[in-house]
Amino acid sequence: MAKDFTTREENYSQWYNELVIKADLADNSAVRGCMVIKPYGYAIWEKIQRVLDDMFKETGHQNAYFPLFIPKSFFSKEASHVEGFAKECAVVTHYRLKNSPDGKGVIVDPDAKLEEELIVRPTSETIIWDTYRTWIQSYRDLPILVNQWANVVRWEMRTRLFLRTTEFLWQEGHTAHATENEAVEETEKMINVYADFAEKWMAMPVLKGIKSPNERFAGAVETYCIEGLMQDGKALQAGTSHFLGQNFAKAFDVQFLSKENKLDYVWATSWGVSTRLMGALIMTHSDDHGLVLPPKLAPIQVVIIPIYKSDEQLELISETVNDIVKKLKALGISVKYDDRNTQKPGWKFNEYEFKGVPIRLAIGPRDLENGTVEVARRDTLEKAVYQIIDIEHKISHLLESIQENLYQKAFDFREENTNKIDTWEEFVKQLDGKGGFISAHWDGTSETEQRIKDETKATIRLIPIDGKMEEGKCILTGKPSKQRVIFARSY
Amino acid sequence: MAKDFTTREENYSQWYNELVIKADLADNSAVRGCMVIKPYGYAIWEKIQRVLDDMFKETGHQNAYFPLFIPKSFFSKEASHVEGFAKECAVVTHYRLKNSPDGKGVIVDPDAKLEEELIVRPTSETIIWDTYRTWIQSYRDLPILVNQWANVVRWEMRTRLFLRTTEFLWQEGHTAHATENEAVEETEKMINVYADFAEKWMAMPVLKGIKSPNERFAGAVETYCIEGLMQDGKALQAGTSHFLGQNFAKAFDVQFLSKENKLDYVWATSWGVSTRLMGALIMTHSDDHGLVLPPKLAPIQVVIIPIYKSDEQLELISETVNDIVKKLKALGISVKYDDRNTQKPGWKFNEYEFKGVPIRLAIGPRDLENGTVEVARRDTLEKAVYQIIDIEHKISHLLESIQENLYQKAFDFREENTNKIDTWEEFVKQLDGKGGFISAHWDGTSETEQRIKDETKATIRLIPIDGKMEEGKCILTGKPSKQRVIFARSY
Repeated sequence: MAKDFTTREENYSQWYNELVIKADLADNSAVRGCMVIKPYGYAIWEKIQRVLDDMFKETGHQNAYFPLFIPKSFFSKEASHVEGFAKECAVVTHYRLKNSPDGKGVIVDPDAKLEEELIVRPTSETIIWDTYRTWIQSYRDLPILVNQWANVVRWEMRTRLFLRTTEFLWQEGHTAHATENEAVEETEKMINVYADFAEKWMAMPVLKGIKSPNERFAGAVETYCIEGLMQDGKALQAGTSHFLGQNFAKAFDVQFLSKENKLDYVWATSWGVSTRLMGALIMTHSDDHGLVLPPKLAPIQVVIIPIYKSDEQLELISETVNDIVKKLKALGISVKYDDRNTQKPGWKFNEYEFKGVPIRLAIGPRDLENGTVEVARRDTLEKAVYQIIDIEHKISHLLESIQENLYQKAFDFREENTNKIDTWEEFVKQLDGKGGFISAHWDGTSETEQRIKDETKATIRLIPIDGKMEEGKCILTGKPSKQRVIFARSY
Repeated sequence: MAKDFTTREENYSQWYNELVIKADLADNSAVRGCMVIKPYGYAIWEKIQRVLDDMFKETGHQNAYFPLFIPKSFFSKEASHVEGFAKECAVVTHYRLKNSPDGKGVIVDPDAKLEEELIVRPTSETIIWDTYRTWIQSYRDLPILVNQWANVVRWEMRTRLFLRTTEFLWQEGHTAHATENEAVEETEKMINVYADFAEKWMAMPVLKGIKSPNERFAGAVETYCIEGLMQDGKALQAGTSHFLGQNFAKAFDVQFLSKENKLDYVWATSWGVSTRLMGALIMTHSDDHGLVLPPKLAPIQVVIIPIYKSDEQLELISETVNDIVKKLKALGISVKYDDRNTQKPGWKFNEYEFKGVPIRLAIGPRDLENGTVEVARRDTLEKAVYQIIDIEHKISHLLESIQENLYQKAFDFREENTNKIDTWEEFVKQLDGKGGFISAHWDGTSETEQRIKDETKATIRLIPIDGKMEEGKCILTGKPSKQRVIFARSY
């Protein structure tokens, strides 16, 4: 176990904060609530980006870029959107600084006040739909299937690295369609893309469903989401896809001439995931020894460490290792040979274990004699001695096993921590105890959901899409219910 | 020639503006000076990003991400930096809006004023060096070789799509070194990476050199640059690499313990290219028929258009085309088969010609009979009939020829438009005439450079790095000079 590292049991929240910083993933900056994403953390984000970007393109989307700034008045155009988004945000009021009259530093030039303030985008529906008005005339211009990778700013009072920061990185898809049906299909397609990504790449099982009205995106008709379960029994919303109806088209007057030569408002969707996924990834798999990464998203999949006393030994070991490196690379495996002489093997073992490198190989002089190598896997911390012959395929296979094992472990954890509950007493007890997902009946009203939240801090995470219909009584009010929904405390 | 499209000779500047918009590269937005980069333009930028990112990684760099906002006081810490950068910028003064008391829209909440204003980054040296202080203790932590892909904001009064916009996209490398020598080497390495990229990928020949003190980056000891020559005879600075000495380390107190156990300030470089490269790319190759793209950066390298009257004909053509598409893709060539029945072939010919697709194939029923295809190349507008047999290798070869031809043409243009000039009269005449690069003597003083700029609008674009020494007399003052420098009017 790493020195000076809090365990999950001691303090889960502190464990997370320490892990993010000690594993060199991110750090706080001089600007309140804004993070610095360090190279190792950013390398993971780049892998996430690359995979998602490919998935978006395979489903017909193209990237574009829209302005960072949004005129203040745009937020007032969509009634519910302004309530949800235009409040806690960074406001640009001036466009110039000047030398301070007292000769000390610079001050804001009062003569350079903007006529209309600009908001640093918290999300881009408004500026994008203002643009789409000029792109769309007829059905021939539809659908528009556009995504943007960007930074956004929401002024958060309490921030935590990756999970909730004032500035964060994300992608936001914004699509425009001729029919309601097509837009709903797009919304569902993208939540499925997110679920696939979460399960196949992040090895994180997720529940799919729709949000209750209370938790819906400001301006959406329906919000679809994926939710993961973290090791402390709290849920984490990992991605959302919104069916926006004609709300933004109406707010920004985006009409099109249909095949039938009729003017109609355009149908819209938007969908996004953010650097919050980094927090989900960390909390789903990591342990008291530090970060654990699924091989498919690990910047370094295999690290090789030589064990030697003399330069001659290192030279012999390096010959064998260079050959192994070449073979692993040929299979597309990312491998690092750490032959630095400034650090001891024990230090390196700890370093890569803490940083979650899935497989560590160690080779010493005796291994050379025996044609073997010591193989340690990060997920189970098990060690074994492998024959070097055909090592690349054994490693490739082991990486797959680790990926599967991490998913299975997280899946089992979620199953163990998902409970059907039918009484209020049990409901409260479960939340105050191990938490987890609770499948319970709800009378369908916003008032009840709000009361449950006030009393327990739990919210409806989602209403299962394909959940089976079942008569029951609301967990709080006892009023009739037709379907269980998923409750949890959440990030 | 496209309808309603200004020629270069009629009005070069208008030609450029129309081209950018009509080729669907970018558009103006509702926010003054901020552009929308449309999917086709962004696809080119993505190619640029991907190639450069690979080049940065091959030279040992990693990506990271630093905050969008910089505390105002940071800009006052490096004396010359504040003069150059902290003036025309977006200033965030508040962090909340609230409902307007008159019920109409939202207003800035006066209670939510920031204690210290935040500047939207115009460049990130200050926030990054403030961060590096916590990353660097000893020589073991060096070098730091970090790059960031980001948006930046400089409040520009006169903007032009891609060339000068209030918000633009770029990459900024920021490296930290233990020795002056190593930092200078890094600075030179990166200007060479940029020159390679410009010449081999953009097919744009560039001159390499260093800036005169007047044109140096604010805070740099030495600025290296690459300069291209546009078709209107004006120069365009396409990339810069700065040796920053210990200026930022001193301003942000970043010291390290050397191998000799001595405290010293860290040596720095920074280097960047931006979406301005898009402007350079467009202006270097395009013509009165629209955009011309070098094949290596074209999102669509080959477009195939079927010529048919009946559905049966289309079906037969499509069979052959699908086979060609498969073969081209197998060679990594990006190809689009446009079999839409909503547009006529002539419309499609114009469309792809205007968008600069390097090669167009057209296939009709007679081609099927003859086993041929019509091949049109965008750079020369020449057409030829090819046998379909082995078409993929012929096309692959042709793409290479087009890439080379574009470079050669731009190179010849630059050579024709680079003149050694020794008298003031000729100097002024050349600038008022065809422009171009002027190689002339300069007495080495800032005053003279400024006078030349005031009188002719020309600046010293660069002092050649490996330029030969040659005694001469300053073009303006007649004072002695030891080396010719390159003058031009510029973007």
